[in-house]
Order: sequence, then structure tokens, then C-alpha cells
Amino acid sequence: MNTHLMTFQNTSIVLGEGLRQSVLLEDACKTSSIVLIADENIAELYGKEMQSYLQSSSKEVYLLTFPPGEASKSRATKEKLEDQMQKKGLGRDTTLIGIGGGVTTDLAGFIASTYCRGIPLILMPTSLLGMVDASIGGKTGVNTPYGKNLIGTFYLPETLIIDFDFLVSLPKEGIEEGLVEVIKMALTSDKKLFDEMEKAGESLLKLDKPLKRIIKRACEIKLEVISTDFEEKKGMRRILNFEHTVGHALEKFFNYQMPHGTAVAIGIIAESFIACELELLKRTYFNRIVKLLKPLAPCKQFDLREVYDYMILDKKSQDQLPRFVLIDNIGHVLAFNDDYCTLVEEDVVLNALQFIQEI
Amino acid sequence: MNTHLMTFQNTSIVLGEGLRQSVLLEDACKTSSIVLIADENIAELYGKEMQSYLQSSSKEVYLLTFPPGEASKSRATKEKLEDQMQKKGLGRDTTLIGIGGGVTTDLAGFIASTYCRGIPLILMPTSLLGMVDASIGGKTGVNTPYGKNLIGTFYLPETLIIDFDFLVSLPKEGIEEGLVEVIKMALTSDKKLFDEMEKAGESLLKLDKPLKRIIKRACEIKLEVISTDFEEKKGMRRILNFEHTVGHALEKFFNYQMPHGTAVAIGIIAESFIACELELLKRTYFNRIVKLLKPLAPCKQFDLREVYDYMILDKKSQDQLPRFVLIDNIGHVLAFNDDYCTLVEEDVVLNALQFIQEI
Repeated sequence: MNTHLMTFQNTSIVLGEGLRQSVLLEDACKTSSIVLIADENIAELYGKEMQSYLQSSSKEVYLLTFPPGEASKSRATKEKLEDQMQKKGLGRDTTLIGIGGGVTTDLAGFIASTYCRGIPLILMPTSLLGMVDASIGGKTGVNTPYGKNLIGTFYLPETLIIDFDFLVSLPKEGIEEGLVEVIKMALTSDKKLFDEMEKAGESLLKLDKPLKRIIKRACEIKLEVISTDFEEKKGMRRILNFEHTVGHALEKFFNYQMPHGTAVAIGIIAESFIACELELLKRTYFNRIVKLLKPLAPCKQFDLREVYDYMILDKKSQDQLPRFVLIDNIGHVLAFNDDYCTLVEEDVVLNALQFIQEI
Repeated sequence: MNTHLMTFQNTSIVLGEGLRQSVLLEDACKTSSIVLIADENIAELYGKEMQSYLQSSSKEVYLLTFPPGEASKSRATKEKLEDQMQKKGLGRDTTLIGIGGGVTTDLAGFIASTYCRGIPLILMPTSLLGMVDASIGGKTGVNTPYGKNLIGTFYLPETLIIDFDFLVSLPKEGIEEGLVEVIKMALTSDKKLFDEMEKAGESLLKLDKPLKRIIKRACEIKLEVISTDFEEKKGMRRILNFEHTVGHALEKFFNYQMPHGTAVAIGIIAESFIACELELLKRTYFNRIVKLLKPLAPCKQFDLREVYDYMILDKKSQDQLPRFVLIDNIGHVLAFNDDYCTLVEEDVVLNALQFIQEI
């Protein structure tokens, strides 16, 4: 078993194999009670065996579940799970372990942060996206009828356990979705990582050394970003909005039926096209970006004007014009006077939208 | 206008007169929107005039209200108020001002801590209890069907404004309730303050210099305690839990219909009785405590066993046994290996409960 350890504030981050049934996990639970939180699918796949494993250390271990899907990321689910914990008489001497994708880690983190005003939290992301993005950074929250993640806290887990073995059961689409997110990170923050992913190519779709290396590097990047701006008070965070202007508009146009990873991939290509058109980004770099992302960005037909109009609704837009986070190099975002985004002429944007329909 | 300033972490604490319509309050609001949260009574008394006053600084100012009483300190009220804020499109650029007693400051603090993962908070306690206790220390929270304050956060206001003028309209019971809390502080931390209150006697019931002195001293004590142990990770902050094991159980038994001050007064007597029975506290001290608190602790009949069972639900309990914070002198709490609480035999606890029914 090969584990890599990093620490951020009081969080230990452990990466490796076989961690979901390990002494390391047992040791991370310092309380007399443990609550595992997972959606019904993950509970079936892993939750029950983890419960049995942890029970052998003679602790009280409960497994609480909720229906899978984004709809469960709500105040109602939070309340239901809290009530189940309270009914069992659980107090502060309880560790909460969230096992699953972003919905679960966000929900479990929010519950841990407000249960008895904060109990120890362990997160175990099971999706690639969760490993490289959602579970890192202490953002917790739920959706409301008014929008996503509107109610939540900043709350760090004591331990973040990234068990590569969870990826074995992940479908190809799940791996691709996570890879797109890593490519995005590389484009905004780390040229070396981009080079590495280009070289690794298709081999990243297998659970092997190259993928594990990339996960580790992505965690490091995310940690660097959040350690400079943990509560998103500075403008830096805007760089995470790269591809959002196009990506979110597409998701809205397709009524959220387009896979998130696809929207991100297409968004990256479109916004890199804009940077290239404006002669901010070299064409050779742009071509490399297109080449790497094309397999992950299946061509879709859509109404240019309608998608353009959705962009104007974006939080960053100004004077009825959409604004964009733009890169001027692989691994570097333009600061635009610390705004980290800029207005772009309508015809350039429409050309970009035209382009992504034709690749 | 005479204001006294203290600071704790990033919180400024201001005490004085006429503060609810002051440049100081205006300056404390650095965002473009302001939400005042108050119960319907306080909104009528002060909220509306404060709204008009703050609107004159050409900011968007909203007044949101809820029905008065402990029943409003719930997840349901929190959700309703959040939805009203979201409906108005309010984001992070919003300051939340909570004006009222402990219910309001706890609720407003909890909302501020989770709205967009945290927005600026100003607290203005209107009750003596709020001034000396509830609004200081960053504890926020709501009750659930399983107990008080079970869901919440630690979240400090940017500014805590203690306007003595609010006390003018407070009934005698309200003053007494606050005084009980100050007696509690004196018992755990400051013998001199206890002596002073014994001497001052009835004069504390008027809004005059002795009362103001005591408020300021109480704030100082509370700050000393929390500044050494903000998130109750060490045992130290536990000393604030003196009387809670009995007090909270009684409140639950009487379905939160017993005035909080009464529960605290009875709780202090019961837990001092335990300390005396265990020969930790001298009987002469115990008698002084009973004498000072008796007028504030009207005798009540209740089911011993049921109240005992509620104690086990307390956050401090261990192995299904209640634990207690105990004093061994006026102004001093026993450390019990830095746990600042200890298990007590069932029969001693039941004797204490018997005693408080008979005084």
C-alpha cells in the first residue's frame, strides 16, 4: 500500500489504495461513534462493508443513506439525516464520514459543520471529479429553489481520503468528466500538468500510474489556490470561472441534460478560441487544446443566438455584454486589472460558438 | 454619549447609549444591502425606526420578522428568512443585523454563517441576558425536536453593539433573567463580582450605574473565557456549561415554557447542591448561593426520572451518564483533568433534583 500524505491547515490528505478498509481510516476516527453518510447506490457498493469493517473496532457505527442525485442536496435531506443522528442520541463524540461524489461530500460537510456546532469530518470521494475538485477546499452546502450552493459553510475535513480503488467501478464517462476538470485546472494554473496529460493520452482512461500522478497533482493545485484565498474573499477565485460563460449557457440551453463534463470541454474550446481570435493565445497552443479536448467534446447543434442570450444572464456580465476569463498561455490566466475577466465583442463570441458546432 | 470599546478576534464590541441610531452603526455596515432581523415585537418597537434611519444612507435596507418566542428558533424559521433574502436577490454584499434577545441573535448568527457560506453580521442584543451572554462568543444555532441548540455554528459578528437604552423598556423579569446569568458567571469566574452583586441587591433592578458596571464586567469575563477556547475544543469553555445539565433538562421537561432565567437559577442551585454533597463546595458558600438565587428560582414540581433521562441527551454526557461542571468555591470551577466536567452518581443527581423541588 502506497499512500501519499499532504496537509492543509488541520486537514490530512491521504492518497492510495485499499484505504476504505484500512488501519489509517480506523485511526482517523477518534470518537466513540461513527456515522457513514452515502447515497443508496454507494451504500450498497461500499457503505455496508465499510460499516462492518469499522464495527469490528468495537465502535458504534451507523450507515445513513439518501436517494442518489442532485435533488438530494437540499435542506430537507440535511434535516432528515440530522434527525436520524439525533434520534440515536449522537452528540459531539461522533465522526461523520461522507462517502460519494460531490453531492455527498458537500452535504456531509455541511451537516458536520452545524451538528452540535461542528463534529469531526472525514471525506472519501468516490468519483474522479470529487477527488480532484469537489471534496477539496472546505466548501459545503445545499441547493435551494433559488440556486445552487446558496446555503452552506466553509468547513475542512480532519482527513480527506482519496482511495484510488473507488475508480475501478467508475464508468468511462465518469473518468472523462474528471479529466476535463483536470485539463481546465492545468490550463489555468499548470503548464507541466497539461504537457503530462497530452503525453499520457488514452492511458489516463485506465486506473494506472499516470492517472494517479495526475490526481495527486490536481489536489496540489487546488490546495495552492484555496490556501491563498480560503474563503473566496479575493479576486483570484475568478480563474475558476474559466469556461463558465459558455459552459453554463450551454447547460442551460440543453436544460441541464448535457453532461457537465461535456459542457466544460466545449466551454474550454470556445473560450480558448476567443483568446486565440483576440491574439492573446498563440494558435499552436489553441490547436493543442482542441486536439486534447476534442474526443471529450462531442459536437452538438444549438441555436447561436439563444445560447448567446443566456451568456448575458451570467453573474459576470456587464452592460448587457458577456465577460470571459481568458488564458494567454497554457497554464496562465490574464488578470485584466485583477478582474480576471473581460468584455468581448459579440461577433467574436458568435464565431466561437460557430466553431464549436463544427469541430 | 459614552461608549466603551473592546475587541475580540475581528469583533468590535461597543457599549453605550443611543447606539441604535448612530453613525457608529452606519459605519459598521460596509455592504450595499442590509437586512434587519427581529421578532415582530422588537420590529414594531425598534426595527422600523432603525430601517428608516439606515435607509437615509441610501442603502437597500430590508426588515424581516418572525413570531416572537423560542419556538421560532427553528430550522423552519431559518429557511423562511433565507428564502425571503434569496427572493430579493441578495448575495454576499449584504450585512445582516440581528436585533433582539437570544433567540434572535442565535438565529441571525446562524443565518449569516451559512448564507452564501457567510456574510457580515452585526448583533444588537435588546435584553440584559443577550447583552451579558447570548450575543457574546459566536455561538449560533437553532433548536430541534431533540433539544436546544443542537444545530448551529461558531460565527462571530463583525460588530456587537450593546445599547443600554434598550433596557429602558425591559420588564423586571427580563432584568432578573439577565442578573441570574451574571450570577452564574460570577460563580464560575469572579468572586469579586459575586460579592458586589450580593451588596448591590435590589439596586441592580434599575437602569443605573451599578447595572451598567455589571454588564461591562460580565462582557469582559465572557470574552476572557471564549478567547482562551473559542470553539470549545479545550475544556475551558466548558465552564459556561455550569448549570446546563440540569437547566436544559428542566427547560425540555417544561416544553420550553419555563422562563430561561428560572431554569438557570434552579440549575445553579441543583449543581451547587451536587458540589456540596460531594464535599467539593463548602456549605457556607452553598448557603450564600441559595440565598441570592432563591427569589429568582420559584419552586416547580416535575418528574425526577424524566428530567434525569433528558440529562443523558446533553452534549457532554458520556457512556449514557450525565456529566456536570462543578464549582469548589465562589468564582472557581473544578478542572477535572482539563475536562471541566465529571460524571456524578445517579442518586446524588436525584437528590439534587429532589432538593430544588423543596426550596
